[in-house]
Amino acid sequence: MKPSIPKGTRDFSSTEVAKRNYIFNVIKHSFENFGFQPIETPSFENSSTLMGKYGEEGDRLIFKILNSGDYLNKADEILLSEKNSQKVTAQISEKALRYDLTVPFARYVVQHQNDITFPFKRYQIQPVWRADRPQKGRFREFYQCDADVVGSTSLLQEIEFVQLYDTVFSKLGLHGTTIKINNRKILSGIAEVIGASDKLIDFTVALDKLDKIGKEGVVKEMLEKGISENAIEKVAPLFSFSGTNQDKLNDLEAMLQASEEGLKGVEELRTVVNMIQELGLASATLVLDVTLARGLNYYTGAIYEVAAPKEVKMGSIGGGGRYDDLTGIFGLKDVSGVGISFGLDRIYLVMEELNLFETVELPKPRVLFLNFEASENLSKIKAIKNLRENNIKSELYPDTATSNKQQKKQWKYVSSRGIEFVVTDVENDVFVLKNMINGEQTTCSLAELKKIIS
Amino acid sequence: MKPSIPKGTRDFSSTEVAKRNYIFNVIKHSFENFGFQPIETPSFENSSTLMGKYGEEGDRLIFKILNSGDYLNKADEILLSEKNSQKVTAQISEKALRYDLTVPFARYVVQHQNDITFPFKRYQIQPVWRADRPQKGRFREFYQCDADVVGSTSLLQEIEFVQLYDTVFSKLGLHGTTIKINNRKILSGIAEVIGASDKLIDFTVALDKLDKIGKEGVVKEMLEKGISENAIEKVAPLFSFSGTNQDKLNDLEAMLQASEEGLKGVEELRTVVNMIQELGLASATLVLDVTLARGLNYYTGAIYEVAAPKEVKMGSIGGGGRYDDLTGIFGLKDVSGVGISFGLDRIYLVMEELNLFETVELPKPRVLFLNFEASENLSKIKAIKNLRENNIKSELYPDTATSNKQQKKQWKYVSSRGIEFVVTDVENDVFVLKNMINGEQTTCSLAELKKIIS
Repeated sequence: MKPSIPKGTRDFSSTEVAKRNYIFNVIKHSFENFGFQPIETPSFENSSTLMGKYGEEGDRLIFKILNSGDYLNKADEILLSEKNSQKVTAQISEKALRYDLTVPFARYVVQHQNDITFPFKRYQIQPVWRADRPQKGRFREFYQCDADVVGSTSLLQEIEFVQLYDTVFSKLGLHGTTIKINNRKILSGIAEVIGASDKLIDFTVALDKLDKIGKEGVVKEMLEKGISENAIEKVAPLFSFSGTNQDKLNDLEAMLQASEEGLKGVEELRTVVNMIQELGLASATLVLDVTLARGLNYYTGAIYEVAAPKEVKMGSIGGGGRYDDLTGIFGLKDVSGVGISFGLDRIYLVMEELNLFETVELPKPRVLFLNFEASENLSKIKAIKNLRENNIKSELYPDTATSNKQQKKQWKYVSSRGIEFVVTDVENDVFVLKNMINGEQTTCSLAELKKIIS
Repeated sequence: MKPSIPKGTRDFSSTEVAKRNYIFNVIKHSFENFGFQPIETPSFENSSTLMGKYGEEGDRLIFKILNSGDYLNKADEILLSEKNSQKVTAQISEKALRYDLTVPFARYVVQHQNDITFPFKRYQIQPVWRADRPQKGRFREFYQCDADVVGSTSLLQEIEFVQLYDTVFSKLGLHGTTIKINNRKILSGIAEVIGASDKLIDFTVALDKLDKIGKEGVVKEMLEKGISENAIEKVAPLFSFSGTNQDKLNDLEAMLQASEEGLKGVEELRTVVNMIQELGLASATLVLDVTLARGLNYYTGAIYEVAAPKEVKMGSIGGGGRYDDLTGIFGLKDVSGVGISFGLDRIYLVMEELNLFETVELPKPRVLFLNFEASENLSKIKAIKNLRENNIKSELYPDTATSNKQQKKQWKYVSSRGIEFVVTDVENDVFVLKNMINGEQTTCSLAELKKIIS
């Protein structure tokens, strides 16, 4: 029986690791360049740290770790005989795998608050685990790449995150991304103006369909959801919402005159939009999207979402926003935070589709020394030592061929690993070097060999 | 109530992450330079993959993951009412956290055998989890850094691993390590000569005390363990075992004349020792240590262990060896493997003790722009954009100071983060730059600023 891995998990081959690390390194480098500091937290946390932080659905999707030893000893007999899985869990499991990086970060900030200099800009790139039903592009183990700032309410952070998205995607060669931005205060303002904050989600869901079902369709859906004709009238400009970000901001400002919070949202967005206009972006476009409402109950200010270049069909490849009371759940009040996240798996798929991995160096030797004659090995190993000291990846095929068949096996190794240069023989410090791409063969000294292959 | 993390786990601050990554990067770079390819496997495996591979003790120390949903549904009522923890585990848990990287690697090789080009040189740097009792230097979550070759019986691998240890520790500045080497076949030879393979462990344990209790003490202990006087006589040279590796090999060869396997071991070690003598090592010393017997039941050829420089008291900082049938447990026979491992946590402690982290760049900006005057911010952000494009880490303090107290807070931020350069003001593209180490203040253009701080 062939061994397998749990569903929703993945093995990564060396080529996949190399491509993934390429993305990680670009993100890491940009995070650090922008002043974010790396932290790492344990893979599992006390269950009490995680449970209740992601809603009922989230609690169900958290992987729980069984206590060690005679764990049933402490479990209640009656609950066991009733097979009450939910209540028994708390008695036989004290630890759980990290579900995201945000709650562990909040826990970290509170636990280490006396050692941290605020404002604290941290980044964290680690795997998380969710017992979700696996499907295409959705895994039970996947990496999150988060950057957050806590301890500052300055809008400069919001500006910097737009620059950070632009920088990372430009460096990855992912040109033509759209950074969508919205502000929770604008959404609250709309709720105020339409007269019912409980209708806000229905409202934005309907509005989001404008492209597909047109103004009439949207109005019809809103009326069906119980939003009054009068209210719809007040936010009518949203149905012909187009033009530049400045046009949209002007429309919003006019529309939200009756909402102090809404106007505050317009002002905040205007600051970000104006500053980004001054600074310019390398390859992304910043677009005000008033239908953007991800994590509505969570965010209190800016909301971000990044769409892949239009030629690729893919969900969002990044997102984030400002939350005013992240650490409150662990008892530290009034610490505002704002952060963004990069969706590694989707970025990987987009880059694969756009052939953007071509420049990534794959993990294979620049030159392979064949092993047909054991007496040459000392010279070959000495040469390899020298090459490696010069950071030129090189290898000697380990087993000496004692037959034609074994020689063929070595040539097969060269082709299946796609190795470009091969040294066949060495005699008196003269190397026979073969270029596998054009088939050319030359004899050269070690110094010449270094020049040719690097 | 302050939040906490499970015992045996750790949070890593940005300084700790920077130092750890420094070690990881040196190891990674050397692994790749030597031709090893990275792979990654899931954090949890099917329990059937892990259970029974590490002995009874190992099975107990594996962290098990509770099945999702109504997991008790499938559990046997009688076992539940008996609170039979061990038997219930198999019914309520199908997955378990990785215990080491070797078994998942074996599983990977078998599962992907058709996609792998053999000999396969892989490296893997990932965390593992063990429900061990936590104590100083022993954690429940820790990283392993493994390099292995499977599919070749060539001794060139054994030679290369000695070079690899030497390269990594030399690059880390850890001069004076001792790479101890032994061979399982020599130990088997000794067992043959003393006439009882079941006494081998008693024998090596006693022999290992030679330094402390002298020849007489060792002989006494061996006799007590039931090793005959006659047998002890035959391996007497081991009691005065000293001199060069060559001396030791000659002694062993004379001693093991009656054991074919023992002589094979001597021949293998001689090949490695001679080749390393030819090639030279940068900072490590290769020492034949016949008492080295780690994982005796596991290894079949070479056995390695690395001792830290003598000025530091620390257990082994690396180890490994050859195992002839790694993948047999998953049904793929006759694939020989050899590998080594680096002990990250101990290497970290040794480097800390020897002050070897001094050159590691800590995650902080090269220059901080103070924020005392909001009207200057656009100029400052433009300058920072330019600096970052030139890979000079720089930051603007996010909140504008509106009082003396808030200005002081910014200066405090500078000192607690140990920032070297500070820009206080900008006017007409002229920057006021302060060197916090010598207190000097200069006015300069952006181009001049770049030169000064880089």
